[in-house]
Amino acid sequence: MGQKDHNRLMPLISLPRRMANWIAGMGTNPVKVSPLAPADYPAMPAIEGVRLAAVEAGIKYTNREDLAVIAFDNPAAVAGVFTRSKCPSAPVDWCRKQLPKGKARAVVVNSGNANAFTGRKGVDAVRQTAQAAREVFGCKPSEVFIASTGVIGEPLDASEFAGHLERADGKASTDKWEAMARAIMTTDTYPKMATRSFEVDGETYKLNGMAKGSGMIQPDMATMLSFLVTDYPVASSLLQKLLDKAVGPSFNSISVDSDTSTSDTVLLFSALNGRKGEHKAKSAGARAFAKALGEVLHELAMLVVRDGEGASKHVEITVSGAKNTASARRIALTIANSPLVKTAIAGEDANWGRIVMAVGKAGEPADRDRLEISFGGLTLARKGLRALDYDEGKASEVMKRDFIDIAVDVGVGRGKATVWTCDLTAEYVAINADYRS
Amino acid sequence: MGQKDHNRLMPLISLPRRMANWIAGMGTNPVKVSPLAPADYPAMPAIEGVRLAAVEAGIKYTNREDLAVIAFDNPAAVAGVFTRSKCPSAPVDWCRKQLPKGKARAVVVNSGNANAFTGRKGVDAVRQTAQAAREVFGCKPSEVFIASTGVIGEPLDASEFAGHLERADGKASTDKWEAMARAIMTTDTYPKMATRSFEVDGETYKLNGMAKGSGMIQPDMATMLSFLVTDYPVASSLLQKLLDKAVGPSFNSISVDSDTSTSDTVLLFSALNGRKGEHKAKSAGARAFAKALGEVLHELAMLVVRDGEGASKHVEITVSGAKNTASARRIALTIANSPLVKTAIAGEDANWGRIVMAVGKAGEPADRDRLEISFGGLTLARKGLRALDYDEGKASEVMKRDFIDIAVDVGVGRGKATVWTCDLTAEYVAINADYRS
Repeated sequence: MGQKDHNRLMPLISLPRRMANWIAGMGTNPVKVSPLAPADYPAMPAIEGVRLAAVEAGIKYTNREDLAVIAFDNPAAVAGVFTRSKCPSAPVDWCRKQLPKGKARAVVVNSGNANAFTGRKGVDAVRQTAQAAREVFGCKPSEVFIASTGVIGEPLDASEFAGHLERADGKASTDKWEAMARAIMTTDTYPKMATRSFEVDGETYKLNGMAKGSGMIQPDMATMLSFLVTDYPVASSLLQKLLDKAVGPSFNSISVDSDTSTSDTVLLFSALNGRKGEHKAKSAGARAFAKALGEVLHELAMLVVRDGEGASKHVEITVSGAKNTASARRIALTIANSPLVKTAIAGEDANWGRIVMAVGKAGEPADRDRLEISFGGLTLARKGLRALDYDEGKASEVMKRDFIDIAVDVGVGRGKATVWTCDLTAEYVAINADYRS
Repeated sequence: MGQKDHNRLMPLISLPRRMANWIAGMGTNPVKVSPLAPADYPAMPAIEGVRLAAVEAGIKYTNREDLAVIAFDNPAAVAGVFTRSKCPSAPVDWCRKQLPKGKARAVVVNSGNANAFTGRKGVDAVRQTAQAAREVFGCKPSEVFIASTGVIGEPLDASEFAGHLERADGKASTDKWEAMARAIMTTDTYPKMATRSFEVDGETYKLNGMAKGSGMIQPDMATMLSFLVTDYPVASSLLQKLLDKAVGPSFNSISVDSDTSTSDTVLLFSALNGRKGEHKAKSAGARAFAKALGEVLHELAMLVVRDGEGASKHVEITVSGAKNTASARRIALTIANSPLVKTAIAGEDANWGRIVMAVGKAGEPADRDRLEISFGGLTLARKGLRALDYDEGKASEVMKRDFIDIAVDVGVGRGKATVWTCDLTAEYVAINADYRS
């Protein structure tokens, strides 16, 4: 997704810092809301046959909902993408196994415990959850999708999930999108939601999405958890194809701290409600849906970056002139993940020398003597040295912005890629030196 | 270099925090000395025919020496390794070009300006420096080795270097090792020196080394600048061979922040003083020298890590059970460079779940269900889940130490590697959000 598309989406999320001092209800860990938080949240429309609920299960946090459910009245088509970690969590293993069957009736998500690196016990906890959901929602265990986020290595006690799910079923309704988006938060400082409507053959359809994720964010996958539901009928095979494509320029193009979670999960559902799903990728309907999907995923990805742990700046990095797209992407991610680049941005220092360093570090073809670097449209370096019209004052002005776009041309080819990240602040260290305790 | 060798060297540098409140003379940027600084510095012996000096050239810092020189009375053999950055500095280009000629008469090093990404002007500054040294030391320009460290992208004015080098020559003496080690510092909080003596055929020889480096430290190369001189006569070809080998388990096995400098330079000299140099790698002399070289490089590498920007912990990470050595090394570096691992260590939190995350992120073969993790000899996880005898209290005790050794067995093979790093603190962010200004 290019700069243009990005700008089109920005107004929705780059709103004033009205909520900067609002304290999120994070149980025992009250934290300040990100200064980059949106001023308000989108109104999420109801989707027929889709009910949601969030309940208090007391897994780790107290006085907040930490177990959420999406229940489909009729079997939904489903697609998913997961972490590439070599040490995936038990719920990720479970979802991967159920996905080929292509049918979903319930999604169960908990925060506070990732059920990762929990061995046999972790597998049992997932089975127990699926069994409990089966009884409550009257479906097969294979139609239950499960995700967990929180501490790694702590056994998850699911023995009381049956009761919690029953309560959830009792209070589930079509309007609980925000409640669920809040229930799945961990170090997030605000709930993340996005929605689009689109038309196919004169009918209006909807796509609702939510995400959680704040640290341990690096492609691939980026956000830890994201759930999306549409009422446009799409068959699982096409749903998967479109999701695979759409995560590339969204969740797979962001990084908060280069760290990859054991639990990253994106699940996309089509509430068929008995209808036959579209399966042709080139149909007008598939195109309209794919466009909405791209926009919702991009918006959620930006919300994740803007809630990056300790973030004070939203940074866009576009690398052009690379050997090819993959090379451009590697250089862009090397810049995005460089602690020295990230701390300079935190310090509002237009230290473009560190961009040079990061380009050199990436190990990709780049012509030092043709390198061109600009911050916020202001060219700082040209043809391998400081721009002749370089103006430290103007550069400093750019760095004071909330949103900083960095463009780097490495002068060897036509490859281009854009990634998004945030800065690295002392707040990030404080949050993570202290998360578990 | 294994744990055993490491422990043998440790007593030399893991001394009490006596100097924690000492303020380094860093010109306008006074900083606290690393709490991991050595209590004192080794006495560096004179090496025949080798004179050193440091002078004030006012390049960036005020009231401190920032230009240093090593002068060889007779041609010395020389070997070097340099940054793998695709955007190397002008001095690195220069040294690479002179190295094959294998002869050195002078080394000129400045701090405060890296002369990197300075285009034509940078090349001119290097030439001007070599010319000035040629006149002062009566040698060929190709016998002058040059290194610069500091800000990237700022033109280096070398127009007055002739005068500075003349003053340096006037005051040069065989005992100025510490003066030079101080003059080449940038964000370093203490000078880094190491020395060894060794015997060959009943004769005693010396090897002196110094290094600077604190941030932008990642293999390969790790330390930004290091200079070593021996009086054991070794031919350039063998010198290069031994240096290439010795940087592997030392400078190329450390990382402070994963960032790779444009300027990393290690130069090793043998002051031949007219003697013919050893050229057989399997001679007893070459072996004795190689051993001393390995020890000095390792000690300097540890001093760099312990002076990592903002460091409060010295961390050793050993990965075993990997597919092969390269794989073990990649996993170890992924752990070492993970912001979430580094911040947990800063917070004295035995958050081994983040080690699992980093192993999974590395993308190398690893068996999640056979993973074993220990901190300070205390096993925290075994066979893919928390150890049955896990004791949070004991784990917390380990985390309070200055030196924390983490061992991870990934359960797939016999590959093993050790790397060293430091933690990531709010101090690191403060230093780097503010370095240039």
